[in-house]
Amino acid sequence: MSPSSRTPSGATEASDTPSEADETPALATIGEFGLIERVTRDRVQPPATLLGPGDDAAVVAQPDGRAVACVDVLVEGVHFRLDWSAPEDVGRKAVAANLADVAAMGAVPTGLLVGLAAPRDTPVETLEGLATGMWTEAEVVGVGLVGGDVASSPTLVVSVTALGSLEGRAPVTRDGARPGDVVAVCGRIGWAAAGLAVLTRGFRAPGVLVDAHRVPTPPYAAGPAAAHAGATAMIDVSDGLLADLGHVAADSGVRIELRRDAFAVPDRLAEVAPALGVDPIDWMLTGGEDHALAATFPAGTTLPAGFVEVGAVVEGEGVVVDGEPYAGAPGWEHFT
Amino acid sequence: MSPSSRTPSGATEASDTPSEADETPALATIGEFGLIERVTRDRVQPPATLLGPGDDAAVVAQPDGRAVACVDVLVEGVHFRLDWSAPEDVGRKAVAANLADVAAMGAVPTGLLVGLAAPRDTPVETLEGLATGMWTEAEVVGVGLVGGDVASSPTLVVSVTALGSLEGRAPVTRDGARPGDVVAVCGRIGWAAAGLAVLTRGFRAPGVLVDAHRVPTPPYAAGPAAAHAGATAMIDVSDGLLADLGHVAADSGVRIELRRDAFAVPDRLAEVAPALGVDPIDWMLTGGEDHALAATFPAGTTLPAGFVEVGAVVEGEGVVVDGEPYAGAPGWEHFT
Repeated sequence: MSPSSRTPSGATEASDTPSEADETPALATIGEFGLIERVTRDRVQPPATLLGPGDDAAVVAQPDGRAVACVDVLVEGVHFRLDWSAPEDVGRKAVAANLADVAAMGAVPTGLLVGLAAPRDTPVETLEGLATGMWTEAEVVGVGLVGGDVASSPTLVVSVTALGSLEGRAPVTRDGARPGDVVAVCGRIGWAAAGLAVLTRGFRAPGVLVDAHRVPTPPYAAGPAAAHAGATAMIDVSDGLLADLGHVAADSGVRIELRRDAFAVPDRLAEVAPALGVDPIDWMLTGGEDHALAATFPAGTTLPAGFVEVGAVVEGEGVVVDGEPYAGAPGWEHFT
Repeated sequence: MSPSSRTPSGATEASDTPSEADETPALATIGEFGLIERVTRDRVQPPATLLGPGDDAAVVAQPDGRAVACVDVLVEGVHFRLDWSAPEDVGRKAVAANLADVAAMGAVPTGLLVGLAAPRDTPVETLEGLATGMWTEAEVVGVGLVGGDVASSPTLVVSVTALGSLEGRAPVTRDGARPGDVVAVCGRIGWAAAGLAVLTRGFRAPGVLVDAHRVPTPPYAAGPAAAHAGATAMIDVSDGLLADLGHVAADSGVRIELRRDAFAVPDRLAEVAPALGVDPIDWMLTGGEDHALAATFPAGTTLPAGFVEVGAVVEGEGVVVDGEPYAGAPGWEHFT
């Protein structure tokens, strides 16, 4: 990790003036290098990590001569709350959101870098938990945390960069959907929104939904599988299915028609929705943060395992549900 | 840029509830996508950018099958102050710090990604200035801003990821210095520290020093040149020469001996130092943020243009100046 604890301009840096150790040591007591040492110690890097943390930069294998690259920024109080999620969950979620973007290109991840801005009084335990969560999710797909940077900040901000390999394939972009294609989804949709709705109302159960909000489980392998199968466009569902398919429709210059009866409402959503006065289909159409993959395929394609057909691509623009513009809950205003 | 304006947990996202337009439009009035549109419009991507902003991820050419990757985090009030530096300068500095890390591996940059966390009321003008500065510095080395993410945050945080290509060479790490090597530096050292000292005392001149604090001018091409010439170790001077050579000494298991008389004090530093009661050599030995390159070479190497020999590598540990441990100003406590 790059030790860029540069001379601060008018403020002190995390490791400048260690405060006295107390029962819960804070970042300031161990400093940037102390933290880096703790979170990289005993971690095993996969073969793709040609040079890991500890130098000015890392080196990652990109066998086909290209790197897929994306970044996601999570802010405490905006994207996560440490009273609702354990640090491990936040770390997993930050990495998952980014690995899903790699998958949505049809790529497999090759490495992760972390930019962390944290208050000086952040408990070391919290930061170690964040790092543990990141490693846990990274290990799901066999990549390493190859580098990063730590800075002092009034607000806790986690910026994760993911690199990926297309394995010789063309990237699956958002602009390739063509009239006649089918639209299919792989992975959970609406679960995180339901979990958030539960938490917002002060409940902690059903645990499976709360967990879905805390830690998404994107279907990573479905991304390359969709690319293999000939997906014409793909996106990960981070803002909500309608919002994200809206990007595909706009970038591809097509209309996407979804059929409400194509969505099988999972029992868990069906059970809890009435108590919260919600139509579970709303969660499925507009809920973000599950990081499912939505893709279009030429008609007649044998869909890869896990993909469920939910609609079709036609001439026109926008996204409609059962032939009508969706007039549901807000939260997906990017889709207009 | 990945539009990951995901469902917020208990707070609103930048583009959820646009406030009324006023004379200085804020981020909240144009939202994430409005900002991305503004800062990517009319920008020309270089050939290495195989797929630029606008999809789940970017794709960057990495011709030798490897990617150098590093991240730097800058925080308002900690690493920069917008009353001391124009947004353009902050953007340039954020990118320069990162490109210098790529150079310090002996690599050439191939692409940049930006993770931006900004308050909803941040003037759009400020963010456009940041982006302009980033593009200005990127164009110095011919790379593009290939992607990024924007999030709402109480604090302005800029996280820049740089990718680079080793062009078939081995990376120049920090652990390769060997007894008998010479130590050489390329680029300004002490200038940014002098500029900061000037600003801290309420002055705005000499402009050349203040400018050096605001925007470093790392000798990017010297990195690959040093690698070509056979550099055994290299680091960019972000924390201060003694601190950063301390990393080289520690990682290489050697002692580095600097000679005070090898440092030619630039006129600008010599002129301003007495008025501030500083020995300019202190600035040169401990000042960070200029992002010079410090490297070690086998004895007898014809040093690449711009490198000046300042010392030697011997058996032992630590860094000494004229044979003695340096007992100067603080700010480089990583070097012990």
